[in-house]
Amino acid sequence: MSHSTTSAPLTSLGIDALRVYHSEIRARYDAFAARGVKLNLTRGKPSSEQLDLSAALLDLPGSKDFMIGNVDCRNYGELQGLVELRALLAPVFGVTPDRVIVGNNSSLSLMHDAVTFSLLKGTCDSERPWSKESRVAFLCPVPGYDRHFTICQDFGIEMIPVPLTAQGPDMDMVERLVAADPQIKGMWCMPKYSNPTGTIYSQNTIERLAKMPTAARDFRLYWDNAYAVHHLTSERIEIANIDEACACHGNPNRAFIFGSTSKVTFAGAGIGVFAGSKDNVAWYLKRIEKRTLGGDKINQLRHIRLLKSPEGITALMDRHRAITAPKFNQVLAAFEAHLGNTGVATWTKPKGGYFITLDVLEGCAKQVVKLAKQAGIELTPAGATHPHGNDPQDRTIRIAPTFPASAEVSQAAEGVVLAVLLAATEKLLAQAG
Amino acid sequence: MSHSTTSAPLTSLGIDALRVYHSEIRARYDAFAARGVKLNLTRGKPSSEQLDLSAALLDLPGSKDFMIGNVDCRNYGELQGLVELRALLAPVFGVTPDRVIVGNNSSLSLMHDAVTFSLLKGTCDSERPWSKESRVAFLCPVPGYDRHFTICQDFGIEMIPVPLTAQGPDMDMVERLVAADPQIKGMWCMPKYSNPTGTIYSQNTIERLAKMPTAARDFRLYWDNAYAVHHLTSERIEIANIDEACACHGNPNRAFIFGSTSKVTFAGAGIGVFAGSKDNVAWYLKRIEKRTLGGDKINQLRHIRLLKSPEGITALMDRHRAITAPKFNQVLAAFEAHLGNTGVATWTKPKGGYFITLDVLEGCAKQVVKLAKQAGIELTPAGATHPHGNDPQDRTIRIAPTFPASAEVSQAAEGVVLAVLLAATEKLLAQAG
Repeated sequence: MSHSTTSAPLTSLGIDALRVYHSEIRARYDAFAARGVKLNLTRGKPSSEQLDLSAALLDLPGSKDFMIGNVDCRNYGELQGLVELRALLAPVFGVTPDRVIVGNNSSLSLMHDAVTFSLLKGTCDSERPWSKESRVAFLCPVPGYDRHFTICQDFGIEMIPVPLTAQGPDMDMVERLVAADPQIKGMWCMPKYSNPTGTIYSQNTIERLAKMPTAARDFRLYWDNAYAVHHLTSERIEIANIDEACACHGNPNRAFIFGSTSKVTFAGAGIGVFAGSKDNVAWYLKRIEKRTLGGDKINQLRHIRLLKSPEGITALMDRHRAITAPKFNQVLAAFEAHLGNTGVATWTKPKGGYFITLDVLEGCAKQVVKLAKQAGIELTPAGATHPHGNDPQDRTIRIAPTFPASAEVSQAAEGVVLAVLLAATEKLLAQAG
Repeated sequence: MSHSTTSAPLTSLGIDALRVYHSEIRARYDAFAARGVKLNLTRGKPSSEQLDLSAALLDLPGSKDFMIGNVDCRNYGELQGLVELRALLAPVFGVTPDRVIVGNNSSLSLMHDAVTFSLLKGTCDSERPWSKESRVAFLCPVPGYDRHFTICQDFGIEMIPVPLTAQGPDMDMVERLVAADPQIKGMWCMPKYSNPTGTIYSQNTIERLAKMPTAARDFRLYWDNAYAVHHLTSERIEIANIDEACACHGNPNRAFIFGSTSKVTFAGAGIGVFAGSKDNVAWYLKRIEKRTLGGDKINQLRHIRLLKSPEGITALMDRHRAITAPKFNQVLAAFEAHLGNTGVATWTKPKGGYFITLDVLEGCAKQVVKLAKQAGIELTPAGATHPHGNDPQDRTIRIAPTFPASAEVSQAAEGVVLAVLLAATEKLLAQAG
């Protein structure tokens, strides 16, 4: 399928060669579309095979097992969550168990609530509730996670895009912005295997985020460490400890740390985690004690019984990797083979997480998503990786290879490749014509 | 233990007789305290025996059982909750399944979030977010549920107490207040077996609540039907359908209906329910879709498998009643026997729910709670039944008989009786002397 017409980049073809190439790709695309496949690469969902890895949860804890220590997990109580589960998850997030809160499923809920609590009551360092401020802004590294941006958009929080580099957000820009503007109250960070680029924040980036002076006394890093243990290679990359770095630089309350077991055990029935400084945890507990008498402790107990130990988590994540890494490799191999020397696409090669970012020819992302859809492949809407769904260059597409079965992934990648090549040649023809 | 000195009310005794009676009660109280019991009547918690009724949940759904219809309950999705569970719970709350949302454990969370959403965004009928109003007030029938009041207090929502009558809140007062004040945006209602009085709203009360003109266009009844199926007698009382009544009177969006399975299955691992009009449900879904991809569907599936049918719920609640009703009867028998002709206490005889309200001599409730504590019996703090924890008459005490084992309940009731009598005689002596 690599373009036979030439081995030069498409961008350097003359109009005639482009026309020939276009009709060839059009024919291939039509043939693919005629197959009538129905494939979905939209969301970072674990596959059925991955979910099977935690099948034991469906029988746990078992009818005689509901006490842990003196706690009857069936009844009310334990606002902060079972200490045994906090102890198990604390090392993943680099804090001590007393500084972990375990909630119900979804860290998204915990992030959302941290924002609403800050709006209505302020953080423990705020002079007033954020809703009493004339303006509240968050820094948003782009490309980023659409659900982060949606929370800001929903509550009228201004989003200031900051480009992601290979080392994390552009720190010169970040430092300049937060030093100057006291209304910048927060920043979304996915420090490890970022959604959707797979970016890993460097030690230096994390150091600078912890140390930088901020005009807002109540500035917070929303440290969404969603993929802390979600490696795609045997490297099992570790990043610097944000909690220690912030404390070390005299900003102990700077980071709200989030995570979950959604992609460790069951996506819809896992455990969400909030972690942070003593003051942040006390603040968060004070807020949630108005809302609940505690999370689902039976589910916490299930997770204790299933995961057992840090080694148990590592072993489980290795089994996930055995399923997911080949799917990523299928997509990357297809991209390399068919887009590699075309000059119309670049993509990330993540070492963990759930996504590949595919950058296509400027102004083509929406068209690629549309063409893919017409060929039976659902992609995340173009623009979703940017605040307000607006990718000013209309270039970035998020690819989520985990959910389809392995046999479908190569097909889906083939369809994406054809959509990319077709959109690019149409664009180049329009420019030439 | 009934006062041997006289069969006349304590309030009619002369000073000498009171002194004799006081030393007798003091001696009995001291003897009780010397036993060193440790009993807790504070919170409406199910007992271990009640939790055992749902032991099957600990093994459910079982390792092969995770699909329902086309939904893989292990994965993300189904924001509104599984339709099969909504269909099962809808009749309890008097609406159709499409107008039910099932969430994670605790209806308190759903009520809290309804308030925060209204503050930050307004309801579907609000002109602006409540946080942009100069003042927001809720009507609070008293005695009421402390956790309702805490939500208001936390967010600076003014609480206007309304006395509960035997038919529900004083409707003359309610109608007058809501007609006049556009800042009254809500009202807490526990229409059936109210916490803590056991009050059942009459048909007429519910009719008037549905029909009354309100100055606020976005006025909401926070209809906490926490004890919808929690009967203590074979009557299984049904109340009027608030949703139908509101719709019938042209106020379809007036009621936010809440409930949960916390006291049906597991207190800490149940299912919370929000129900209401089409517009209210659409509004609530639009709010929570920023917060979550859906609740814990495996736990929803567990509840479908355990409860099975409306008849399954009824049968389970009958088994609860077989455990709880005798405990209520033990307390009521002790009160009747030892406080019945004293003139220093009255109490409710609930037909459902989790509480008895004990009204003691004015100005004595705090002292009764203190004396009970010194005798080893923990009671809910006096005042908890009123906004800001302030019972102006210092009279009302909430008694929660469900959690202690049956053998302990009579002991606890005995201790409460002694504390009531001791506090009353001390008060009467102080007044006389």
